[in-house]
Amino acid sequence: MSRLETFADGVFAVAATLLIFTVDQHVPDPADLAHAWTSYLAYATSFVTIGIMWMNHHQLMTQIGRVDRRFMVATIGLLMCIAFVPFPTRLLAEHIRDSGGRDAALAYGFTMVCTAICFSAVWFYGRAQLLRPDADPRVVKGISRSYLPGIPIYLAATLVAFASPVASAILFLAIAGLYIFEASAFGGGTES
Amino acid sequence: MSRLETFADGVFAVAATLLIFTVDQHVPDPADLAHAWTSYLAYATSFVTIGIMWMNHHQLMTQIGRVDRRFMVATIGLLMCIAFVPFPTRLLAEHIRDSGGRDAALAYGFTMVCTAICFSAVWFYGRAQLLRPDADPRVVKGISRSYLPGIPIYLAATLVAFASPVASAILFLAIAGLYIFEASAFGGGTES
Amino acid sequence: MSRLETFADGVFAVAATLLIFTVDQHVPDPADLAHAWTSYLAYATSFVTIGIMWMNHHQLMTQIGRVDRRFMVATIGLLMCIAFVPFPTRLLAEHIRDSGGRDAALAYGFTMVCTAICFSAVWFYGRAQLLRPDADPRVVKGISRSYLPGIPIYLAATLVAFASPVASAILFLAIAGLYIFEASAFGGGTES
Amino acid sequence: MSRLETFADGVFAVAATLLIFTVDQHVPDPADLAHAWTSYLAYATSFVTIGIMWMNHHQLMTQIGRVDRRFMVATIGLLMCIAFVPFPTRLLAEHIRDSGGRDAALAYGFTMVCTAICFSAVWFYGRAQLLRPDADPRVVKGISRSYLPGIPIYLAATLVAFASPVASAILFLAIAGLYIFEASAFGGGTES
Repeated sequence: MSRLETFADGVFAVAATLLIFTVDQHVPDPADLAHAWTSYLAYATSFVTIGIMWMNHHQLMTQIGRVDRRFMVATIGLLMCIAFVPFPTRLLAEHIRDSGGRDAALAYGFTMVCTAICFSAVWFYGRAQLLRPDADPRVVKGISRSYLPGIPIYLAATLVAFASPVASAILFLAIAGLYIFEASAFGGGTES
Repeated sequence: MSRLETFADGVFAVAATLLIFTVDQHVPDPADLAHAWTSYLAYATSFVTIGIMWMNHHQLMTQIGRVDRRFMVATIGLLMCIAFVPFPTRLLAEHIRDSGGRDAALAYGFTMVCTAICFSAVWFYGRAQLLRPDADPRVVKGISRSYLPGIPIYLAATLVAFASPVASAILFLAIAGLYIFEASAFGGGTES
Repeated sequence: MSRLETFADGVFAVAATLLIFTVDQHVPDPADLAHAWTSYLAYATSFVTIGIMWMNHHQLMTQIGRVDRRFMVATIGLLMCIAFVPFPTRLLAEHIRDSGGRDAALAYGFTMVCTAICFSAVWFYGRAQLLRPDADPRVVKGISRSYLPGIPIYLAATLVAFASPVASAILFLAIAGLYIFEASAFGGGTES
Repeated sequence: MSRLETFADGVFAVAATLLIFTVDQHVPDPADLAHAWTSYLAYATSFVTIGIMWMNHHQLMTQIGRVDRRFMVATIGLLMCIAFVPFPTRLLAEHIRDSGGRDAALAYGFTMVCTAICFSAVWFYGRAQLLRPDADPRVVKGISRSYLPGIPIYLAATLVAFASPVASAILFLAIAGLYIFEASAFGGGTES
């Protein structure tokens, strides 16, 4: 099990760190620093989102007692989505203010919806088959309750792109902010 | 032994995450999103293939009791192949539909054949010299049986490229799908 | 707690290693090797700075007994700054000698100030809430004392850029050198 | 100590995996596959060299009982050299056959000499101050004996570049091959 976590932590960490290319490619020259604020927001949104997902994966794994090959395959699917995030992040940063904004926001949102689906698949399979004998029922219930809204929330924010790509991007930012607020305000739970 | 696994997990995770450049370089602009489906398929094929190889490496190491320098050298050879995968993946994604498709499919297949050879070298050396005293004979036999077909299967899929690069690429995708199906359908084995 | 460290170590290691692109993009050809000394200095300055920060994070974590979600969020904020470092490093290396030098030095310094703020936030929250029962009071006091000057020192070096970008860059280099000297001269403390 | 190894393993793994950009940038198109053999050789040489260095670092750490800040600083210096390797590798691969070959070979060799110096600094400081009480004297003597020739060997291969860059590059390849042969032929030592 610890090696699954090492591999997963590696993909989370590399995907988050590669996000810097979003900014780096958008700002070839210091003269562009002030105009590239969409890059900084996109970088921060995706970094925080991947960071929160890492936290959720960490919490999820504390309740899992053993790992089978199906669980590994589902985790690989989840990591495939996480590693994809830098690509739509760059598209969104570069094109939110031009005619490509709608497609960029759709690509970003679609990636997030897929990630949320994979997260639920990993969790609900793990909960059904691989739970620790001494798993904390309240934590298990809490995770289940917090995962369910992820899919419709990201789906709604994605569909908003048909009306307004900018509103969609603001919603992606707001979701990340909401997760941080939730973790900071109520997240006093101790984890060893 | 744990450090060999940390290093290996690092290379597996970084190589898998770098695959996103395949898509990122192929789609500079949201207008290209719809036409770049070969990139998405190539990304998914290689990500899943590296992920399955990571799973196999993980399973292999559970049966190995100690590590010597020859085993490390063989593992470095294996990792050299794994880290190479993003390159032919990009070639295949970009050129499968033009005149470079045959060479791209050959490069991809050749990389996979080399990887399969290195995997077998790691395993059969480890099985002969470094097996845990309490290794599970059924698992050992199962690994040996599952590794042997890898080389001829990838070799056959590679040679198909001389007749049809597209058919060869579909076979690479099918092999990855088959591995997932195998792991999902029969893979109920518990691993701690 | 160990997974937080794995994730953090991953981001530190990847961010440090990605710094090589600063040099790689600046020197397309061996003929440019001699003129690109600003790249080598920038690479070394940022690599050492990230390395020292990793050491500090390592030392900090030895005094922390448990981790809660707020601490994780603060750590994600810190890592977001660390992963950002390769971008202003490249700007500084390429533009310190042209008219973009001032903005590049400001971007570099601003990143360092943010990093120092996040480091203090992680530490002072951790010290207040999550300290090990058996934390060494002298080490705790030593960390607190060594963190406080970080923010004003980097802020001062940043503001110097308004007068002279080159002087600002030299100060960034000097700060990194000072940290090394401090660690080498007085750093005989054993850590397991 | 384990965190120093996690960080080091991360840098080794990322630096090795980034070497693929040497090949990827040199071969934009499948039509160039056959002509880019210098890239494949450079990739293999540097990957194996970094892999062997990882093995040596692994062996070195088995004899070290504790870590102090000076040892960490020396290790950061070593990792700064390791992370630098992808850059001269690309220069060598692209320019060994043109007029930039000499400078490229000098850059590659200089990086290797610096790496060998840092390796010796890490080891001889660690041997003097931080050895495990139960360190194996034969292993300690063996490491010392195997590290000393590294600096003059790489220095000699580097200086050959003034006469012939190609001969110098062949020597770099031969050194990597020699290390593999040594590890394979005599390297039956068990490591847990």
